Amino acid sequence: MTRETKAAPALQVSQWVNTVAPLTLESLRGRVVVIECFQMLCPGCVAHGLPQAMRVHQEFDRSLVAVIGLHTVFEHHEAMQPHALEVFCHEYRITFPVGVDTPDTNSGVPLTMRAYQTQGTPTLILIDKRGRLRARHFGSVSDLALGAEIMMLVQEDSEEA
Amino acid sequence: MTRETKAAPALQVSQWVNTVAPLTLESLRGRVVVIECFQMLCPGCVAHGLPQAMRVHQEFDRSLVAVIGLHTVFEHHEAMQPHALEVFCHEYRITFPVGVDTPDTNSGVPLTMRAYQTQGTPTLILIDKRGRLRARHFGSVSDLALGAEIMMLVQEDSEEA
Amino acid sequence: MTRETKAAPALQVSQWVNTVAPLTLESLRGRVVVIECFQMLCPGCVAHGLPQAMRVHQEFDRSLVAVIGLHTVFEHHEAMQPHALEVFCHEYRITFPVGVDTPDTNSGVPLTMRAYQTQGTPTLILIDKRGRLRARHFGSVSDLALGAEIMMLVQEDSEEA
Amino acid sequence: MTRETKAAPALQVSQWVNTVAPLTLESLRGRVVVIECFQMLCPGCVAHGLPQAMRVHQEFDRSLVAVIGLHTVFEHHEAMQPHALEVFCHEYRITFPVGVDTPDTNSGVPLTMRAYQTQGTPTLILIDKRGRLRARHFGSVSDLALGAEIMMLVQEDSEEA
Repeated sequence: MTRETKAAPALQVSQWVNTVAPLTLESLRGRVVVIECFQMLCPGCVAHGLPQAMRVHQEFDRSLVAVIGLHTVFEHHEAMQPHALEVFCHEYRITFPVGVDTPDTNSGVPLTMRAYQTQGTPTLILIDKRGRLRARHFGSVSDLALGAEIMMLVQEDSEEA
Repeated sequence: MTRETKAAPALQVSQWVNTVAPLTLESLRGRVVVIECFQMLCPGCVAHGLPQAMRVHQEFDRSLVAVIGLHTVFEHHEAMQPHALEVFCHEYRITFPVGVDTPDTNSGVPLTMRAYQTQGTPTLILIDKRGRLRARHFGSVSDLALGAEIMMLVQEDSEEA
Repeated sequence: MTRETKAAPALQVSQWVNTVAPLTLESLRGRVVVIECFQMLCPGCVAHGLPQAMRVHQEFDRSLVAVIGLHTVFEHHEAMQPHALEVFCHEYRITFPVGVDTPDTNSGVPLTMRAYQTQGTPTLILIDKRGRLRARHFGSVSDLALGAEIMMLVQEDSEEA
Repeated sequence: MTRETKAAPALQVSQWVNTVAPLTLESLRGRVVVIECFQMLCPGCVAHGLPQAMRVHQEFDRSLVAVIGLHTVFEHHEAMQPHALEVFCHEYRITFPVGVDTPDTNSGVPLTMRAYQTQGTPTLILIDKRGRLRARHFGSVSDLALGAEIMMLVQEDSEEA
């Protein structure tokens, strides 16, 4: 885990799946936030990243840990439009909220992904209870290490002493 | 393996991926043909059916066994259009020819799928050297059983005695 | 995790593998102790319990978390003697210290296993920095949950306030 | 598959598990014989070789294909004695007949293993219906390839034309 301490950039989401009301990091303050950045046609996301996020969603108390998916499409945009993402989430039984990262028609890299400077997909992001960016895992991280990291953040205070 | 002996219905393909010239069962006569019927957003196809078809493609001599994918979209048509299928095949490193089963705008069930009366995806179809439909496996079949079935068909004569 | 708070019973070990000096829980005070109770001919131990213990041994800082194997033979004693255990540890590349739970010729259940009242193998035991028994997992526990539990104990103080 | 055509050497077995009467290759003539050579403390045998042999035992008609285990102990002899093998077979639910390859106190390499000149464990041996040695796979062979090989031998005639 890269130790990071700056405030996590805001989510810039154009559309949500699996949630009625849009989510903001502010509204999740006080909980540890796990963001799974993926693309629906990325094999590593489908085989490893998303199943791991689903396990986190199952394992932890949701009043302590919030899991969010973020569809950060930076290639093959035409093939991964929001209507297809909805079908994907339905077929893969993804039940946590998933946001569509707002496209940037100039660069192709969507806005939240650019703000977080992630390197690709899958990337798992951890944000602490105070809204600070604490880790970005590009590629894979073991369940054992991830469970430990999340618990470390869960144990921290929500407010500065 | 259901023992079946009638002539395999013709492939009704509107578009091909991974091949320059359209394929027909006639042109494959003399080889055992393995058809993997799938949908790109079907989890069982992505996790099991397609990887197995890729193993068959790797394992057997291509002058004896031809592997074909058939994109039999019968639900969520908008999310699984040919341009998305192309990206999918590229990202998942599928190198055998994949045909788009011709849509039927009335029923939603594409034409080849209807002719083969398959029950859903994934379905693995085996056609013998003489072009006869020999097996339809809906769901999963073990590699051990499939290897044996294919070899049984490989050992048969191409022509009637 | 069953919340338990009594002092962990002492290890009653007749012989050690992978360590020169015998280990005691006292000597590990200040570290979280993970004890993998297994039998070398128990399939669940070989397939799941021991590989998980090896991952814990790899993942955590050894000054914070100590992993120990405990060979709690309660059946087929003749087939799982210490000389065979040594070969087993060598062949399976188990590098953490493994103790032979002292046999009880009367009951067949070895002494430490009886003191901990475990139900069988594999059982994973967690002891906190102050030497208190905190959890006994019979069967399987997910890596995600285990990573979280261990980290929770790592974060605790070594001394009472 | 190495193409081999000589007569398979006789089994030299000092003791059998899972069978009342000793087995000989002669008594299995007319069936394809699959011999899984293993050691009970060989990790590759436990994780891959034996589970594959069990799948073969399940998949094929036993009047056509006979599966046998052969405990070819060439190292750590003291830890893998026949009484321990019996416990091992019981715990791992191995139901096909398993023979103990006759030890050679001089070389350490047991007699059948030496006659077959195998390189270690796991090794899977295939013998055709006429009793000829047809393949020796040291290490791993895929289920797809193995299913095909076995079926090829099943399809052959039992008698020379």
